[in-house]
Amino acid sequence: MNEPAFVIPLWADLVAVGLGGVQGALFASGFRGQRRLDFLGVAIIGIVIGMGGGLIRDLLLGVVPATLQHNGYLLTATGAAIVGMLLAGIFERLTAVIVGLDAIVIGLFGAFGTSKALALGLPLVPAVFVGVFAAVGGSVLRDVLMGLPVAIMHVGSLYAVAAGVGCLVLAVADAFGAPLVAAAIAGVVVTAVIRILAVIFDLSLPEQRMLYRRKVAVETSAITIVRPPEDAA
Amino acid sequence: MNEPAFVIPLWADLVAVGLGGVQGALFASGFRGQRRLDFLGVAIIGIVIGMGGGLIRDLLLGVVPATLQHNGYLLTATGAAIVGMLLAGIFERLTAVIVGLDAIVIGLFGAFGTSKALALGLPLVPAVFVGVFAAVGGSVLRDVLMGLPVAIMHVGSLYAVAAGVGCLVLAVADAFGAPLVAAAIAGVVVTAVIRILAVIFDLSLPEQRMLYRRKVAVETSAITIVRPPEDAA
Amino acid sequence: MNEPAFVIPLWADLVAVGLGGVQGALFASGFRGQRRLDFLGVAIIGIVIGMGGGLIRDLLLGVVPATLQHNGYLLTATGAAIVGMLLAGIFERLTAVIVGLDAIVIGLFGAFGTSKALALGLPLVPAVFVGVFAAVGGSVLRDVLMGLPVAIMHVGSLYAVAAGVGCLVLAVADAFGAPLVAAAIAGVVVTAVIRILAVIFDLSLPEQRMLYRRKVAVETSAITIVRPPEDAA
Repeated sequence: MNEPAFVIPLWADLVAVGLGGVQGALFASGFRGQRRLDFLGVAIIGIVIGMGGGLIRDLLLGVVPATLQHNGYLLTATGAAIVGMLLAGIFERLTAVIVGLDAIVIGLFGAFGTSKALALGLPLVPAVFVGVFAAVGGSVLRDVLMGLPVAIMHVGSLYAVAAGVGCLVLAVADAFGAPLVAAAIAGVVVTAVIRILAVIFDLSLPEQRMLYRRKVAVETSAITIVRPPEDAA
Repeated sequence: MNEPAFVIPLWADLVAVGLGGVQGALFASGFRGQRRLDFLGVAIIGIVIGMGGGLIRDLLLGVVPATLQHNGYLLTATGAAIVGMLLAGIFERLTAVIVGLDAIVIGLFGAFGTSKALALGLPLVPAVFVGVFAAVGGSVLRDVLMGLPVAIMHVGSLYAVAAGVGCLVLAVADAFGAPLVAAAIAGVVVTAVIRILAVIFDLSLPEQRMLYRRKVAVETSAITIVRPPEDAA
Repeated sequence: MNEPAFVIPLWADLVAVGLGGVQGALFASGFRGQRRLDFLGVAIIGIVIGMGGGLIRDLLLGVVPATLQHNGYLLTATGAAIVGMLLAGIFERLTAVIVGLDAIVIGLFGAFGTSKALALGLPLVPAVFVGVFAAVGGSVLRDVLMGLPVAIMHVGSLYAVAAGVGCLVLAVADAFGAPLVAAAIAGVVVTAVIRILAVIFDLSLPEQRMLYRRKVAVETSAITIVRPPEDAA
C-alpha cells in the first residue's frame, strides 16, 4: 500500500486530459451519421473524452472530482478539442493517429484510476475495476451521446481487456512493493501495446454465441423472443 | 427510524450481486441484434446487473460505494456472469428463469436501497425513490449499453411499479415501527410477486396517449413536430 | 466569493423542479415513436427533467443530493408530471409552451448549479461547467431514456450555448462583487432570452464539417471508415 497523501501530479493529469480532448474531437469530426454534429457537439465529445475518465474515477471513489478543483482541466480539454477539430481539417487520413492517441489515453486514465484507488485503500480487485471504468467510461459516454453502438460491448479489438490487463499489472506490481510510479508506467505501456497490437492484427474475443451454436442451430429463435431488438422490427 | 449503524450483511449483498450477475449474463446471451456481443460484452452486462443497483444506491446517498470496499463483490459478479453464460449454453428455453431471477433481483436491490436510505435518515419519499432507482437502474444501464429501447419507459409489465410498491411497503412498515428485516422481506416478496404476476397475466399500464386520443384523432400530427424521432426520418 | 453557508431557498428549488416536471411530461406526451411510452414513462421523464439538474449538480459537487433530503422534491416533480400529462390532453398545440418552459428551466438549473458551485469555493471555469451540466443534463438523460438522438449534440438551436452564456454572466458578475441573487437573476434571464431567440430565429452553430469540406469533397469517405454509424449499415 502507499501513503494516502498520493496525488496525481497536475501536469500528468493535464497531459491525459489534453490528449483525450484531441482524440475525442478527432473522432467526432470524422463522424458521418444521419444527424450532423455541430461545432459544439464535436467540442463536447472532446471534453467528454478528456475529462470523463477523471470524473468517473472520482465519482466511484466518493471524492470531490479533481477535475473541478482547478480551472486548468476544463481549459485544457476545451483547447485540446479545438486543436483536434483543426487537425481533422488539416489531415486527410487520421485513423492511425486516432487509434494511437486512444491507446495512450486509456492507458493513462486506467493507470491514474487504479493508482488513486489503491492510494485510497481500496482492495486490488475494485482498484482494477475503477481503473478500467475510468479508462473506458469516456468512450461509453461518447457512444451514448453520439447514438453509436457502445464500442466495448461488441466484437471488437480488446478494448476493455487492454485496460484491464494494464491496470492489473499496475495493481499486482504495487502489491509486490514496486514503486507506484514505475508500476503506473508499466501499466500504461502494457495497455497501449495490447490495444495497438489488437487493432493491427485485428484481434478480438470469440463471440459468446459460439458456446451454444449447436443447440441454437436446431431451434433457431430459442431466446430471441424475450425482447426483440428495435432494429429487428 | 433505525440506528444509523445499519449495514446490509455482506452475504445478503453478495447473494443479490450473484443472482443479478447470472440474470444479466443469461439475458445478454439471448440477445440477437445486428451487432454481436462478444464474451466480454456478456460479462459486462452480468457485472452491470449484479453491481449496478448497489453502485447507484451509494452514489445517490453520497456514500463511498460498498461494492468497491471488498474484493468479494466484483469476484462474485464476474463468477456469476460466467455461470450465466454457461447456463445459457446448457438450457434452451430460459425465459421463465430470466423473469424469475429478475423479479427477485429487483426486489432485493429495491429493499436494500430503501433500507440503507432510511438508515441514513432520508425521509420516506426519497428513500422509496432510492430503492426504485437501485432496483431498475441496472436494467437502464443494460439497455443503454446494449442499444435496446429502455424497458421501463415503454408499455410493458409494471417493472418500476413493482419495485415502487415493494419499497413503499418496506418504508411504511418501517415508519410504523416494524423490524427492518421483516419489512425488507415483505418488500422483496411484494415486488417479486407483482412482477411475476404482471408477466404471467401480461398486465401493463394504459398508454398515456389514451388521455387525449379524441383530439389527436382530429388533428393527427399536433405535437409530433416538436422533435421527430430518428426512426421516423 | 460568497459565504459558504449559501443555500438555494427551498421554494425557488421547488419552483424549478415543478416547472421542469411539467415541461418534461409535456414533451414526453407529444412523443410518437415506434415504441409507445406508457403513463409511467411520461411520469419518469417529468421526474427526470424536474430533478435531474439538481441531482447532477450535487453529484458533481460531491455533496449529498439536496433533492433527496426532503419529501417535497419528489412529490413536486411527480405532481408536476401529472399536471403536464393533463395539460397535454387539454391543449392541442403546445410547442410554444414547451419551448418557453424549457428556456426558463435551463436558466434556473444553470443559475442554481453555478451559484452552489461558487459558494462551495470552485473556481470560475468549473463553476460554469457545473451550471451547464446541471442545465442540460436532464435533457441528455431524457433523450437517452427515450431513445432519441441527444439534442445538445446536433445542429440545433444553441441549447448548451444559452446555458453557458447565462452561467458565465452569473460567475463573472459574482467575481466582480455583484450580489449573488442579482447575478443569478441576470444569468437566468440571459439564458432564457438566448434560447427563445434562437428558437424564434432558427439560429444554430455552423456545422463543424464546413471546416474541411474542400478536402472531403475530393476524397469523400476519408474518415468514415473509422466506425460507421449503425444507421449507415
